[in-house]
Amino acid sequence: MPKRRARTHSSSITSHDIARMTGVSQSTVSRALRGDPHVAAATRERVLQAARELRYVPSDIGRSLSTRLTRRIGMVVTDVANPFYPYLVGPLHDVLDELGYRMVLFAERGEAGALADRLAGQSIDGVVLTTAMLESELARDLHARGLPFVFLNRVAEGVPGDVVTVDNALGASLVGHEVVRRGHTDVAAIFGPLETSTGRDRERGFRVALASAGVQLPEAAVRHGDYHYDTGYEGMLSIMSGTGMRPTAVFCGNDAIAIGALNAARKAGVAVPDEVSIIGFDDIPIADWELIQLTTVHTPASEMAASAGRLLVERIEARPRVLEPRIRIYEPHLVMRRTLADVS
Amino acid sequence: MPKRRARTHSSSITSHDIARMTGVSQSTVSRALRGDPHVAAATRERVLQAARELRYVPSDIGRSLSTRLTRRIGMVVTDVANPFYPYLVGPLHDVLDELGYRMVLFAERGEAGALADRLAGQSIDGVVLTTAMLESELARDLHARGLPFVFLNRVAEGVPGDVVTVDNALGASLVGHEVVRRGHTDVAAIFGPLETSTGRDRERGFRVALASAGVQLPEAAVRHGDYHYDTGYEGMLSIMSGTGMRPTAVFCGNDAIAIGALNAARKAGVAVPDEVSIIGFDDIPIADWELIQLTTVHTPASEMAASAGRLLVERIEARPRVLEPRIRIYEPHLVMRRTLADVS
Repeated sequence: MPKRRARTHSSSITSHDIARMTGVSQSTVSRALRGDPHVAAATRERVLQAARELRYVPSDIGRSLSTRLTRRIGMVVTDVANPFYPYLVGPLHDVLDELGYRMVLFAERGEAGALADRLAGQSIDGVVLTTAMLESELARDLHARGLPFVFLNRVAEGVPGDVVTVDNALGASLVGHEVVRRGHTDVAAIFGPLETSTGRDRERGFRVALASAGVQLPEAAVRHGDYHYDTGYEGMLSIMSGTGMRPTAVFCGNDAIAIGALNAARKAGVAVPDEVSIIGFDDIPIADWELIQLTTVHTPASEMAASAGRLLVERIEARPRVLEPRIRIYEPHLVMRRTLADVS
Repeated sequence: MPKRRARTHSSSITSHDIARMTGVSQSTVSRALRGDPHVAAATRERVLQAARELRYVPSDIGRSLSTRLTRRIGMVVTDVANPFYPYLVGPLHDVLDELGYRMVLFAERGEAGALADRLAGQSIDGVVLTTAMLESELARDLHARGLPFVFLNRVAEGVPGDVVTVDNALGASLVGHEVVRRGHTDVAAIFGPLETSTGRDRERGFRVALASAGVQLPEAAVRHGDYHYDTGYEGMLSIMSGTGMRPTAVFCGNDAIAIGALNAARKAGVAVPDEVSIIGFDDIPIADWELIQLTTVHTPASEMAASAGRLLVERIEARPRVLEPRIRIYEPHLVMRRTLADVS
């Protein structure tokens, strides 16, 4: 396929341009963009790639005239066992319900393109993206297909869309400063996935805070992994048995990782916080259990989920008018419990 | 409305009989049974009540000819924050996905009738019922509408349907016998809701086991509540500060309740298991955390969810043939960890 420069005025690109570029009929282009399963996979892939290259923006007027509301909204979750999600699912369901929409859960792994196909083919009016890994390409595909979406607790770069998030970098920096203030100089971290905006932003905020105080974060004391209990459990064992360093404080990318780390410390007979402090991020209800009492950064999950639902429905119901992307950033705060102490 | 005796041969009842009984047109009856939102609520209620009284069974042949598969299956969950559900949702999603179906989550509270309306109106092919309270009436309404369903970890009496469950009474009896064997005679319990089959069956199994050994379960030492952390936390505090009895073992209706009880014991400074043993039911992953190590009854959640998905899809795809109700009962076993000890 010939490589073309993208035109700057994307709004002038139509499905006819895609048809010319790919050599398939305009009606096939339309069907491919709608996610019609009868279009061959290879053809669909060519059409979507052309749409991306041309920065095609579907006509919302055409779309809203040719389709009607199904009053269903997809929520994409890659990992239903992540303990953070139930605290998003419930409030999102409730606000959508109030607004007359039903939530369809897409609990997916796999390729962004295949998922975009399924979303487009499922007669839904819009999508809430909370998925960890796929966001950029998936969002681009949804954008190319004209399916409204909102990022919940995620951002994808280079794709215009509504975003609802907590300020992750700022929240992690609160941890960094507090760790320094309490005298820790041997610090470790078990961060979330680098492919996620939350993973990157939390890592960045923590590193900046330590650096501003002149505290090192040696690479031997850094782990990355999925936002799972196991990541924290294995990561903590590996840090403790590792390169001879004895960290007195370990920042974890989310509460699930931190709780894994707490359990690993107990397993290894290392006292928290007397021998090592452990700090999480999210403030899920488990963090407040008497047996856990995790010091963590509070993320207002219910408010964020409700806000995401409202933004998405506004965008859907404003059509054919296309709303400008809106960004709602919530402020984090540190919740002091019992897993962070002064260095002894 | 005149009261009629239900005919014994329910298969001979048609929508025309309901039309005669209610005085509305046959087409309105059909629309009401399908959940058409344009039928007035009062009319629909009359139609559904008549269908129930007449024990109307919709013709599956008529239904399958007049509707086509949407390849969507509803999962009804009353309480998404219950930590047991993620372990059902994931495996159910995966097996449905394999079979070419998509899962739509209905996270509902409220009336059974309203929920049945919504399910019937959402173009889904079938329903997985895991909801705690509403099962009997909801299942009867779905049955009256001819919408296939399966009970997952629940049973509703008097409604024919596929059932996938663990043997709850047997599982709870294992706890009762083990508690007795370890010398406990001052026993308490925080059971789940009486309105649920799991609540009733687990209570029954535990009581029978104690009674068979001549151990009392005084009413002052019994609490009931939702399957929540808070039920266990408040219940445990209330039992400990209660009527002067000092139980040495507390059986809880599920792991969420047991974990609430564990945390309450820690809060009150009562050592587990040295001063009090606490036992749960379900064996969610949290039960195996180093900080929890809960002795509990194992429920094979993944296998059960997958089995429910398969039974439901078989039922849907067998139409117009109507399959006999099938029952899959899984065997429970006790998982000994660190919260049950010999009485000291």
